[in-house]
Amino acid sequence: MNRKLIIRVLGAILLVEAAAMIPALLVSLVHQDGDTRAMAYSILLVAPVGLAMLLLPRPDPKDHLRLKEGFIITALGWILMSICGALPFMFSGFLPRFEYAFFEAVSGFTTTGASVVTNFENFPHGVMLWRATTHWVGGMGVLVLTLALLPKLTGRTAHLVKAESPGPSLSKIVPQTGKTAKILYKLYILLSLIEFVVLMICGLTPYESIVHTMATAGTGGFSCYGESIAHFNNLAAEIVISVFMFMFGVNFALYYKALIGEKLKAFYKDEEFRWYFCYIVAFILLISVFNLSYYGNFFTSLRYGLFQVCSISSTTGFVTADFNQWPAVSHMLIIITMFIGSCAGSTAGGIKVVRINMVAKMSRRNILATGHPKKMDVIRLDGKAVDESIVSQVAQFALMYVALVLLGGFLLALDGKFDALTNLTASLTCVSNVGPGLGGVGPVENFAGFGVFGKVVCSFLMLFGRLELLPMFILFTRSAWRKY
Amino acid sequence: MNRKLIIRVLGAILLVEAAAMIPALLVSLVHQDGDTRAMAYSILLVAPVGLAMLLLPRPDPKDHLRLKEGFIITALGWILMSICGALPFMFSGFLPRFEYAFFEAVSGFTTTGASVVTNFENFPHGVMLWRATTHWVGGMGVLVLTLALLPKLTGRTAHLVKAESPGPSLSKIVPQTGKTAKILYKLYILLSLIEFVVLMICGLTPYESIVHTMATAGTGGFSCYGESIAHFNNLAAEIVISVFMFMFGVNFALYYKALIGEKLKAFYKDEEFRWYFCYIVAFILLISVFNLSYYGNFFTSLRYGLFQVCSISSTTGFVTADFNQWPAVSHMLIIITMFIGSCAGSTAGGIKVVRINMVAKMSRRNILATGHPKKMDVIRLDGKAVDESIVSQVAQFALMYVALVLLGGFLLALDGKFDALTNLTASLTCVSNVGPGLGGVGPVENFAGFGVFGKVVCSFLMLFGRLELLPMFILFTRSAWRKY
Repeated sequence: MNRKLIIRVLGAILLVEAAAMIPALLVSLVHQDGDTRAMAYSILLVAPVGLAMLLLPRPDPKDHLRLKEGFIITALGWILMSICGALPFMFSGFLPRFEYAFFEAVSGFTTTGASVVTNFENFPHGVMLWRATTHWVGGMGVLVLTLALLPKLTGRTAHLVKAESPGPSLSKIVPQTGKTAKILYKLYILLSLIEFVVLMICGLTPYESIVHTMATAGTGGFSCYGESIAHFNNLAAEIVISVFMFMFGVNFALYYKALIGEKLKAFYKDEEFRWYFCYIVAFILLISVFNLSYYGNFFTSLRYGLFQVCSISSTTGFVTADFNQWPAVSHMLIIITMFIGSCAGSTAGGIKVVRINMVAKMSRRNILATGHPKKMDVIRLDGKAVDESIVSQVAQFALMYVALVLLGGFLLALDGKFDALTNLTASLTCVSNVGPGLGGVGPVENFAGFGVFGKVVCSFLMLFGRLELLPMFILFTRSAWRKY
Repeated sequence: MNRKLIIRVLGAILLVEAAAMIPALLVSLVHQDGDTRAMAYSILLVAPVGLAMLLLPRPDPKDHLRLKEGFIITALGWILMSICGALPFMFSGFLPRFEYAFFEAVSGFTTTGASVVTNFENFPHGVMLWRATTHWVGGMGVLVLTLALLPKLTGRTAHLVKAESPGPSLSKIVPQTGKTAKILYKLYILLSLIEFVVLMICGLTPYESIVHTMATAGTGGFSCYGESIAHFNNLAAEIVISVFMFMFGVNFALYYKALIGEKLKAFYKDEEFRWYFCYIVAFILLISVFNLSYYGNFFTSLRYGLFQVCSISSTTGFVTADFNQWPAVSHMLIIITMFIGSCAGSTAGGIKVVRINMVAKMSRRNILATGHPKKMDVIRLDGKAVDESIVSQVAQFALMYVALVLLGGFLLALDGKFDALTNLTASLTCVSNVGPGLGGVGPVENFAGFGVFGKVVCSFLMLFGRLELLPMFILFTRSAWRKY
């Protein structure tokens, strides 16, 4: 374990986080609703510590980061960043207790969007913007951002991005990780700017537009209103946000390919995107039909179905309808959507469409190949054969995912506040980084009802889900802490 | 597809089924409560059809059964046998509608024990005994029984037993399948006789003893009383049934090994048994502690915890307590127990302890081997290395299992009668062949509340679960029906 190198990278993360707090500080200065001190103290606390950690250790320049160290840094980095990200909430006095503030910061960075805030009316603008900023930074990844800004931070940076980027394989856009990180963030900023402008055109204020743009881009789901998007009752804004939630659920490498010349072909050539598109359209139609009896007419049903399917599948978690009231069959589709999520290489959570695709293909093969072991075909993705060890890894990942959701449900049940459905969907929505669940954590409820233990469990479930299990699991092994 | 051979085996199954109806006919003659005609008509309908199917086709004696044909026969056999097994219920007039009677027969043969019977008071003794007999026959497997009686029925009979016996690999006790089948049934009869005698000693009537012995042996769960085992309020009987439920959840090959000389060593030498034992003890203690607040004192809590954990883990489904009323954390343990089930090679359902063991080991390996691909150790079971392709198959089986439970929950939600928790646990309890679920299908409720569609879905989920997915899935592929 190369402690010096790890401290150095963690320091860089804290510096980036302090920098990300500056816009919230500026907004608090403009609005003058009493949170300037909270933001300023947070920056003054985080920045020097980060700088010291970045500069004090002098790692051997020949030292390279190993894969496992990359995973450990990522896990530690996300925990440390969430602790520091909780400071503005605590200092402002609006979430004075640490477990509340930590929950909110983790939920922000992991782009879950589950909240323990109950007093939205008088929440100050600066801290609210910081809350939205955590989504934007966490969505594309704080390590990716750090490497975009400090590409020469350490050797073998690919390991860091691999641990933080969702999906079974990192799509390397260009060979150098630093350049890839820059390209990803440029695309991210570009798409965010477009959404910001379009939301303004739809009639939102600049402040509302920026908060909801950052929450959409990170597929997070924090709104500055307790009623979420339902607050606006603005059909145009709903459609715009739906489209952008769908778009931020797409692998970012496809946007790059489209921009450098492949255009729309980049999308329909991609097998995962085709599955993603078909599954979203199918689920929107199904839910709209199943909710017909609830809403009375197809247009209204489609309006809420479209928005909620885009919101849940992209694991954003914005709400325009209390889907707790929907028929049970729609609940099942919501649960299945929470498991699937969106595409690998996007800012969304879930098991990811490409893995579900592979699981479906391996199940089909199992059924068809019975009795013909020689006909055991290779599984193909985008026309290319997938190595059997990767097939097996994907199955194992999906299983560990389900097991974690069950374990999380059990731990939340230990908290003793809610029924089985609430505990299970709370665990699922945390691991998949969605936001709302069913029952007691439904769209019009929030997570404040859990006790201290429940809030901590939820926070860790969100971190496990955002980093796709392994980095967090490794943190809990003895060998992670051994010197070597 | 060798149609002649398939028809011949199906005929043999029907003959065995008709023979299994004879005890119920005799009981109906003794008790004279109006079901003699129902039993007699059923036998007179099933036996000649079976005999004709067995004798009419003359398959080429050189024809051998292929693995896939074995799977198809098994799936078709179980469906056909359930249709014929439904006849006594329909003829007696107590479950006149086909979907009710078919559900009850499937639930019996698959040893699920979920019921749509609501009028237990005046249910005639003969048909009630037939209901219990389906458990006993289905538990060890009707094909195993057929091969025990007709060992020379067809070539390569191992394929038939493989498709019907639960677990990742058939433990061949002796090389010849026919002999293995005979040994299995001798052990099964022996254990059943012991339980029958002990239950009589505990004060049950011979009729009650035989019904509950058959339901325990098959790990089924049908009782002749609506309140299940709670009806007796007999602590001794509860403990006896708990012990036998635990014993019927053990791999039968271990009893054989113990009898031929290994004694108790056969059990503690077996890795799956050790895990099974520890998991049952741990879950009993956990549930007893979690229920302390509900029951007030540890002894009462232990009494109901012990019985329910043995009942659910062995997938029997007998009930002494309405666990719907237990705290949410106990619900989670019940759900997890339903997924796990008992040992491979027993009469119980679920994913099976040996598979869960392997999933745990592969997850551990995934976590520890990160960054050290060369340290990717082989997974060992009973000290022997397991082939990677089997590891991958186990992961894929467990995934398909979870996916089927989710799909079943969705289909049951389409039925539109219950909430999400009821639909999900109904699906799980059917696939795992347990019996009761949570919510609307809880221990003091039953499955009569589902509509026609819901009952048919449940019936098929039970069949999928009992035959461990593949045989039933293959039945729905085009290639199963192709001539070759």
